[in-house]
Amino acid sequence: MKCRKCTEKAVINMRQHKLALCKTHYPQWIIDQTQRFVEKYLMFTPQERVLVAVSGGKDSLSLWDILWQLGYQVDGLYIGLGIDGGIGYSDESQRLSEQFAHDRDLRLNIVDVEGEYGRTVPELAQKTHRGKGKPCSVCGLSKRHIMNQAAVQGGYDVLVTGHNLDDEAAVLFGNALNWITGYMLRQGPVLDARAGMVRKAKPLCRFYEREMAAYALVRGIDYIYDECPHAVGSKTIYYKELLNRLEADRPGAKQSFYLSFLQAKENGLFRTPDPEQVSSQEIGVDGKLLHPCPTCGQPTTTGGECAFCRMVADIR
Amino acid sequence: MKCRKCTEKAVINMRQHKLALCKTHYPQWIIDQTQRFVEKYLMFTPQERVLVAVSGGKDSLSLWDILWQLGYQVDGLYIGLGIDGGIGYSDESQRLSEQFAHDRDLRLNIVDVEGEYGRTVPELAQKTHRGKGKPCSVCGLSKRHIMNQAAVQGGYDVLVTGHNLDDEAAVLFGNALNWITGYMLRQGPVLDARAGMVRKAKPLCRFYEREMAAYALVRGIDYIYDECPHAVGSKTIYYKELLNRLEADRPGAKQSFYLSFLQAKENGLFRTPDPEQVSSQEIGVDGKLLHPCPTCGQPTTTGGECAFCRMVADIR
Repeated sequence: MKCRKCTEKAVINMRQHKLALCKTHYPQWIIDQTQRFVEKYLMFTPQERVLVAVSGGKDSLSLWDILWQLGYQVDGLYIGLGIDGGIGYSDESQRLSEQFAHDRDLRLNIVDVEGEYGRTVPELAQKTHRGKGKPCSVCGLSKRHIMNQAAVQGGYDVLVTGHNLDDEAAVLFGNALNWITGYMLRQGPVLDARAGMVRKAKPLCRFYEREMAAYALVRGIDYIYDECPHAVGSKTIYYKELLNRLEADRPGAKQSFYLSFLQAKENGLFRTPDPEQVSSQEIGVDGKLLHPCPTCGQPTTTGGECAFCRMVADIR
Repeated sequence: MKCRKCTEKAVINMRQHKLALCKTHYPQWIIDQTQRFVEKYLMFTPQERVLVAVSGGKDSLSLWDILWQLGYQVDGLYIGLGIDGGIGYSDESQRLSEQFAHDRDLRLNIVDVEGEYGRTVPELAQKTHRGKGKPCSVCGLSKRHIMNQAAVQGGYDVLVTGHNLDDEAAVLFGNALNWITGYMLRQGPVLDARAGMVRKAKPLCRFYEREMAAYALVRGIDYIYDECPHAVGSKTIYYKELLNRLEADRPGAKQSFYLSFLQAKENGLFRTPDPEQVSSQEIGVDGKLLHPCPTCGQPTTTGGECAFCRMVADIR
């Protein structure tokens, strides 16, 4: 198959776009599309300082690469979770992230969970009530807390993550299967800032996972191939497989599912609780009012400390 | 496995309810649950006249059987679609429906599409623009029109159909995959009456398909086993298979998907367009205002005649 834009051999055929591109035009297309999405969803401007959370995987490193090429002021954040899983998962992720930053002379902030809180994430999961049998819950909570803290303390305007369309569709699918409306209301390419929390954006949310893998490959980005060893058998992976079967039968199904959801939200399908009294920005996913955690200052709907600070207090 | 209520051998084990029942207690449970749903969703009262649309299949005949045993004033409606498919599908369906009514001394109204409109449904599909390559669209349109017409002309208070949980979950799934919000807003156990249209209700909407098959079997109801020959490869069947895989992995997933949707709607997740100006009852699935068709009087959002009357005019 030939590239749509020249006579070179295509490296990818995107059935949902009816578009095949070569190794020169494909990465350029990804970069141009990302710029389009950044503008369309009002994610950030060239004047703003951007912090990209990198895991060492294909999505986050590709995102950093794209934003860097587009000329944005973008630093990286690597969070050392202390996950080994017999493959030195965190060590290798960190090495690849550092190498990436070094090669491009970019600034990478590093937060080491064990150094900061005395325990690795797997240890936190073992020691705390929340973690019992579900390290992914502790990990997600910790990452969200630390990412926001690093962005606030570093004076960044926006925190960006490498979530791709497969990630977003899987989350939406899981929430729609049980109509967890608090989460559905908040899901989107941008989550506006609120007291104690910076703006969050997902510039890759309209690219398929395979498109990001192809981008990383074509651009020669060295990333960690392994999934996190704890993710095996997770719900998200299960939903991704299910959506992949749907996509195989009906090309474009995943994209249509996510984009028509965004459109329905824009058309006012979902309403926030008591729309006259409070804006959705002041309400958490459980529909309760947000207030700042007395310990860390990040917003929470619990009566006292936020879930992260309670977890950390739990092990002291 | 033993029956929960006695020492007899169970004929069915409903994993999502953690409930196994014998051939005596199972049909009784179905009947009791149906009564509960009829009351919970305000479907109809013993004083009202009910018309049940029967196809000769397990769901609609079981529904008629249940409502009859519960003592409701319920007549049947059989629509002769003129579908053969090499297996005499319509003839056999009609014979089984007539036999069922005769055995219980119940009244069955019959509308024959060919006798009434000069063509069978497959012929209509061939002759009309709407039907090109999709007889199911013509069939659905015709059935909806004729069912409502028969209910209005017969002075019935409510039209009931045998849609089960698998049917409802598959429709919801298809609509959620593309966020077709107009249909999602209207989907539920009851659709209230509006000008020119009787109330519609689905008393079986919380029973799994296999539960209705078991009911028909235990009650000795003779029904047509074949699916409609035109339904092969339909989207609904595809979605049902997908949901069945999900259900196999996570028992109760289908039920949770449908019931949490109803709950989210009740909690006000969805809003109707311009809630202050018009009630949802006056708006069609496309969000446009309804008005009566000048030919048949049924509500439509098109400028002139409704889709059914236009289709019928098309072949004259």
